[in-house]
Amino acid sequence: MSKKIGLFPGSFDPFTKGHEAVVRKSLALFDEVIIGVGVNTSKKYMFDLKKRMEHISALFVDQKTISVRQFQTLTVNFCAEIGASHIIRGLRDSKDFQYEKSIAHMNFDISGIETVFFLTDQKYSAINSSIIREIKKNNGPIDSFVTKPELLF
Amino acid sequence: MSKKIGLFPGSFDPFTKGHEAVVRKSLALFDEVIIGVGVNTSKKYMFDLKKRMEHISALFVDQKTISVRQFQTLTVNFCAEIGASHIIRGLRDSKDFQYEKSIAHMNFDISGIETVFFLTDQKYSAINSSIIREIKKNNGPIDSFVTKPELLF
Amino acid sequence: MSKKIGLFPGSFDPFTKGHEAVVRKSLALFDEVIIGVGVNTSKKYMFDLKKRMEHISALFVDQKTISVRQFQTLTVNFCAEIGASHIIRGLRDSKDFQYEKSIAHMNFDISGIETVFFLTDQKYSAINSSIIREIKKNNGPIDSFVTKPELLF
Amino acid sequence: MSKKIGLFPGSFDPFTKGHEAVVRKSLALFDEVIIGVGVNTSKKYMFDLKKRMEHISALFVDQKTISVRQFQTLTVNFCAEIGASHIIRGLRDSKDFQYEKSIAHMNFDISGIETVFFLTDQKYSAINSSIIREIKKNNGPIDSFVTKPELLF
Amino acid sequence: MSKKIGLFPGSFDPFTKGHEAVVRKSLALFDEVIIGVGVNTSKKYMFDLKKRMEHISALFVDQKTISVRQFQTLTVNFCAEIGASHIIRGLRDSKDFQYEKSIAHMNFDISGIETVFFLTDQKYSAINSSIIREIKKNNGPIDSFVTKPELLF
Amino acid sequence: MSKKIGLFPGSFDPFTKGHEAVVRKSLALFDEVIIGVGVNTSKKYMFDLKKRMEHISALFVDQKTISVRQFQTLTVNFCAEIGASHIIRGLRDSKDFQYEKSIAHMNFDISGIETVFFLTDQKYSAINSSIIREIKKNNGPIDSFVTKPELLF
Repeated sequence: MSKKIGLFPGSFDPFTKGHEAVVRKSLALFDEVIIGVGVNTSKKYMFDLKKRMEHISALFVDQKTISVRQFQTLTVNFCAEIGASHIIRGLRDSKDFQYEKSIAHMNFDISGIETVFFLTDQKYSAINSSIIREIKKNNGPIDSFVTKPELLF
Repeated sequence: MSKKIGLFPGSFDPFTKGHEAVVRKSLALFDEVIIGVGVNTSKKYMFDLKKRMEHISALFVDQKTISVRQFQTLTVNFCAEIGASHIIRGLRDSKDFQYEKSIAHMNFDISGIETVFFLTDQKYSAINSSIIREIKKNNGPIDSFVTKPELLF
Repeated sequence: MSKKIGLFPGSFDPFTKGHEAVVRKSLALFDEVIIGVGVNTSKKYMFDLKKRMEHISALFVDQKTISVRQFQTLTVNFCAEIGASHIIRGLRDSKDFQYEKSIAHMNFDISGIETVFFLTDQKYSAINSSIIREIKKNNGPIDSFVTKPELLF
Repeated sequence: MSKKIGLFPGSFDPFTKGHEAVVRKSLALFDEVIIGVGVNTSKKYMFDLKKRMEHISALFVDQKTISVRQFQTLTVNFCAEIGASHIIRGLRDSKDFQYEKSIAHMNFDISGIETVFFLTDQKYSAINSSIIREIKKNNGPIDSFVTKPELLF
Repeated sequence: MSKKIGLFPGSFDPFTKGHEAVVRKSLALFDEVIIGVGVNTSKKYMFDLKKRMEHISALFVDQKTISVRQFQTLTVNFCAEIGASHIIRGLRDSKDFQYEKSIAHMNFDISGIETVFFLTDQKYSAINSSIIREIKKNNGPIDSFVTKPELLF
Repeated sequence: MSKKIGLFPGSFDPFTKGHEAVVRKSLALFDEVIIGVGVNTSKKYMFDLKKRMEHISALFVDQKTISVRQFQTLTVNFCAEIGASHIIRGLRDSKDFQYEKSIAHMNFDISGIETVFFLTDQKYSAINSSIIREIKKNNGPIDSFVTKPELLF
């Protein structure tokens, strides 16, 4: 078999312990995992793009098979560009599932690229980036949901 | 029985193959089906209203019992205006269902108008207008999800 | 258009106020509605088949366009036998929906027969036959969930 | 046991009959219930904050154990401030549940405060504030969903 | 207020760490919690009734406000018998929720007794009695899901 | 990396086109895929175990990296026995997901073995073995849901 490359795409605003666990799990099935930070120019982010990328890179600094890239096109186009055969996603609950299922079928329909899913760890299953942003906005503590949050500021 | 008229309401930004299939199914139960393009002045649409209406009309040009209208009031008020006894909706998944159920009960509570549901074809079950807009924004291909997309531009 | 016949199939052990409301709603779209009591010889029922059929017939004694029939074959085969173009089903919640969706797609795949769905009235949305059987087994009151329950005994 | 205080938080734009029923149910388990109107300065509300609070107060004018307060911090911080041991929430359907579950686990994780859930009455299960705002925007009637709606204007 | 009594009913075949956590949470809102082991003569259990009750009692031996009782009638009848104003239930996921919602509405409809819900701890959210029975049947280890499992044999 | 082995477990009564598609997808990520036919002596199957295994083997006769095995222990024990690092499962809808999530977390808790999920193809998303058995029992056609069904008899 040729080298297996998987893309883990998202806006990661911020990158949570849940995301982190999914990436670590995916290493067992892929030779290389690329974390793709999607940039949507019409969307506003709480955390600076450069900071977000540095933060993610710092978390996986010892993992030679993980890299962090930004992209500003359709996810499946970026897969083609980097040679990824699969999109990697985490699933927390059935709301997640419904949404992910639509996107995954659509991606397959337009490109033939499959999505592979891992379960988010139970202890992280309540974490999502938008709740973390809400806590941050209210000056609440986010360190139980994000590793090394100080790198984001 | 008097003439049975059904309203298929939506913003149709754009009108997908999934929508199209639901309308075709509904013809078996209604003498007349009106496709109502809802206009919400505070919402921004990707596709021009006039283009959206022409596109839908073109798809059903041979169906004398289907017509396309725009409306800018409560859906149930528009039903009363056009003499529709039922609202017609398609269901793809359980997320759809939860949302549609709330709206349908609410519509019944304020007007006594019932909603009747058809299943979206499995092959179109991943299609929704917002994903199509996202693909379009990134210059991806939308022709597997919309019939005659060229009419929208 | 030719006469529109719809089949409302189930085991109806017993036939609830929720079922009753769905049948009444379906009358607005069908010229004739047949309530089909499915008989599965390997299943055990709490209520006697003859009693169940008499009970349902009594509820609609004044509706000339409703009839009650038993059947012991695939639902879609029975549709073909009675000339029904559609299967009629009620939806209460998203658990219902998931199940009904599978069955409806399967029925369409093997026969081309469509299923049309109505929402169960909110006030009956907690009612289902198995809970009613449980109450009955414990000698609890079932008259708020079944019209004329005395006909079942 | 010491005095049991529960917080029922929300934006209540507007406060519906569904909210009202949940508060009345919660009185059986709490010595004092505080209805907390959350204020998010970056969000736009349809109904004026002062009006919303007066409306809610008027509905419970005879209940000495209910009070209405506004807050502009994390919900769990407000709990600490008012001495509430529990957050009170209503559940309508499984979409609600998924969302509420995430928030409740997050609140517990950062503060140890538990959430207790009541079911929304079936007859109010289609009501939610955003649908009511939509009806209002289109000049539809909202009095079947809100008690004393005239107090909101 | 008079003494608040809550019933936590189930078959508890066996009583899991998830059940245990819900009971402990409910103590904050009830003066007395009765764990009711429902006995259905037509159902087969893996664990002996007497063992199940001794096991549960042993877990709460230091809690004077918790007791264990068996019952063989409708849950709401047992509530009346023991003076419980509320049924207590835990919620793990949206499948649980759909089921619990039906039962709770039904119970309220026939008796006026409310159900109050707590979330199952995230770390126990995958545990349910039927999976544990499956593991046991295959001689797998159950001690991470049940406290003091040796008491069940 | 060492050889990656995945287990696709099930009762496969019968093995459907949906199962087949999941196995084919999993080949892209695993060096070897073992289809494990679980045998539960207290369960009754419609199709003979030997026939089921021959049927599955015949479908993949040209795939050297796929083999079919039966097992009669906990799934995770069988993984240990065959050296599988992952359990492979297909997901059709959110009902599937809820169930699979519980099992997967449980399996991880007792063994550390991860589960990886693929989406069932949309065109097979209504297929499941129990509906196929129902059709078969009523002498309906199953060839659109099972490849080479004649091998099962």
